[in-house]
Amino acid sequence: MEGCPVSFVVLIPTVKITGVPQFMCRAGIFPLSRVCVRLALCVALCLQPIAAHAGKDPLPSWQDGETRRAIVSFVRQVAAPESPDYIPAGQRIAVFDNDGTLWSEKPVYFQLLFAMDRIRALAPQHPEWKTQQPFRAVLENDMQALADAGEAGLLELVMASHAGMTTTQFETIVSDWLATAAHPERKRPYTELVYQSMLELLAYLRDNGFTTYIVSGGGIEFMRPWVSSVYGIPPEQVIGSSIKVVLEYRDGEPVLVRQAEIDFIDDKEGKPVGIHKFIGQRPLLAVGNSDGDLQMLQWTDAGEGPRFMMLVRHTDAQREYAYDRDSHVGRLDKALDEAGQRGWTVVDMKRDWKVVYPFETTDNSQTSRVTQGD
Amino acid sequence: MEGCPVSFVVLIPTVKITGVPQFMCRAGIFPLSRVCVRLALCVALCLQPIAAHAGKDPLPSWQDGETRRAIVSFVRQVAAPESPDYIPAGQRIAVFDNDGTLWSEKPVYFQLLFAMDRIRALAPQHPEWKTQQPFRAVLENDMQALADAGEAGLLELVMASHAGMTTTQFETIVSDWLATAAHPERKRPYTELVYQSMLELLAYLRDNGFTTYIVSGGGIEFMRPWVSSVYGIPPEQVIGSSIKVVLEYRDGEPVLVRQAEIDFIDDKEGKPVGIHKFIGQRPLLAVGNSDGDLQMLQWTDAGEGPRFMMLVRHTDAQREYAYDRDSHVGRLDKALDEAGQRGWTVVDMKRDWKVVYPFETTDNSQTSRVTQGD
Repeated sequence: MEGCPVSFVVLIPTVKITGVPQFMCRAGIFPLSRVCVRLALCVALCLQPIAAHAGKDPLPSWQDGETRRAIVSFVRQVAAPESPDYIPAGQRIAVFDNDGTLWSEKPVYFQLLFAMDRIRALAPQHPEWKTQQPFRAVLENDMQALADAGEAGLLELVMASHAGMTTTQFETIVSDWLATAAHPERKRPYTELVYQSMLELLAYLRDNGFTTYIVSGGGIEFMRPWVSSVYGIPPEQVIGSSIKVVLEYRDGEPVLVRQAEIDFIDDKEGKPVGIHKFIGQRPLLAVGNSDGDLQMLQWTDAGEGPRFMMLVRHTDAQREYAYDRDSHVGRLDKALDEAGQRGWTVVDMKRDWKVVYPFETTDNSQTSRVTQGD
Repeated sequence: MEGCPVSFVVLIPTVKITGVPQFMCRAGIFPLSRVCVRLALCVALCLQPIAAHAGKDPLPSWQDGETRRAIVSFVRQVAAPESPDYIPAGQRIAVFDNDGTLWSEKPVYFQLLFAMDRIRALAPQHPEWKTQQPFRAVLENDMQALADAGEAGLLELVMASHAGMTTTQFETIVSDWLATAAHPERKRPYTELVYQSMLELLAYLRDNGFTTYIVSGGGIEFMRPWVSSVYGIPPEQVIGSSIKVVLEYRDGEPVLVRQAEIDFIDDKEGKPVGIHKFIGQRPLLAVGNSDGDLQMLQWTDAGEGPRFMMLVRHTDAQREYAYDRDSHVGRLDKALDEAGQRGWTVVDMKRDWKVVYPFETTDNSQTSRVTQGD
């Protein structure tokens, strides 16, 4: 067994989150804190810069095939010092969409499920919501009425659930929710519904001197509390949509208060803008799964020299979900056509991934883990 | 001699910039590229994490006194593993204002001098500017009329000089300007008017596992082309004011075009907002020089556990400039009062800095450099 995903408990800010360590740990089983991630990254960067760990497979959940070979070939092309296309580590920027690329996004974006849970939790303080749409739809679990409320309705839900508190309070709310909420169909914590193959890819890229960023249409502050422990990505490498915050003083102390006003939408044509704003460098590698990622892949592709663009296609109804051109959430249509025209790599989840979720490996490998000791 | 600042030429994007390498290089004289900076940072982080280079003074331009001792004491407090207040490296965030903190800001902000030069360069395409304020004031070098134009006039100058081109074009414009422009009084390239003591402090912090950010009221895209080679700070660790950019397609290629519309003002109460937006962690250490930095220092100070706040006070009319409470540019008034009340460290430039600009050292140390060889 190459990786050793195990259940663990890690402390972030002030709350406990139970999750799966989503990380390839060659040193054995250990609690994965931010420090540890940083240290691992640092050691990997300095002591084992190129395709480290000879003899060990860094991508054990990827089927040996065209997709996997394309990934490995690209990483060697830009990271091997002897390569004519060698790119210095500081410029090895990799960007990943989150919803549908690093974790699942069905039946709807997990952040919407968070917003709905939050509306339910706040309902006692808002008796008017019993009759007022789109809140009534949430309280009555009326998905049709919710769909009828459209984008304006969704925005209203997001503002009611995501604004009005300090940034610190919101971080605690998100962390508390993740620690207790479960996916409506899979009945598991949301942070367990991340893709094992992508965790391996993130770690493989960092082992080869890449800096890995999330570039998501989801909320930046919804992701930051947990992506460090789950993906090994620190808060400053998360780019997402945001609402405005303003500085206020409460009892003489400065606090940042979240406003019911959109600041930035990091989706579609917003993704290259967000990448430029936060990173200031064009990525070498971009991975997405929907038409919302098309412009990010185009922007990456338009850079000089070698670039790698990849789309995850959801083809596995049994282990995950199967959807593309006709899906409301995570529609993959124009980007799929463009991938064909431009020669971008397309992951066929069913064909290319031996493992989808980390718990599959954990469930199957109890015996081998025990024989490995600690 | 501890550091070895030398003149050098470094290639960034497509143009040459001649400057001073603003960096402590213990390995001797070498061209300082982004790669090199990253590598040095990486080696320092991994192999020499705590107060490295025993026996060598990391802050040779700082007078031995209260200010210097406060800095060293704080770094040991949070970075020494045996310290009860030890903070993991990933959370060792240091933020620095730029104008008046890392480089000079007199007679006016250098970015305004860039905007004025740019207006002059564009004037042949805008005959109407000959009679239209505030452009006429720039073309006639009428500083009184320029002052009369106020903030609205300045904004007009910035938009006319900073918007309307692609992000790539703007990067080239800034780099070309820096390569040829000279400070009106010092008659040196602007990138030579950085503070030697602060370059040493930045390097000292990075040697001790800090990530060093710029958090400036200046334009983020005005700083990014040169801060990597001058300060050793990569583009993704620069936070600043910005105008909006939008994605367009030209000949089928995506480009980002700079719009004549403010996106974000990273000054005063905007600084904690910018820090939260870009970093998502509260700094341990914050350095500024004016009332525009007050909220950044308050925000840092309000964090739990050990924090270090510092103001640079310009007290050296002979070597640099002397100004504080009555200055229009870089006014230091409320923040100075608050520093006294809260016990923040105040640098007295004349008293605390043996060297202000790197060229002082270079000019004085020709002999010792030659005897050191390369």
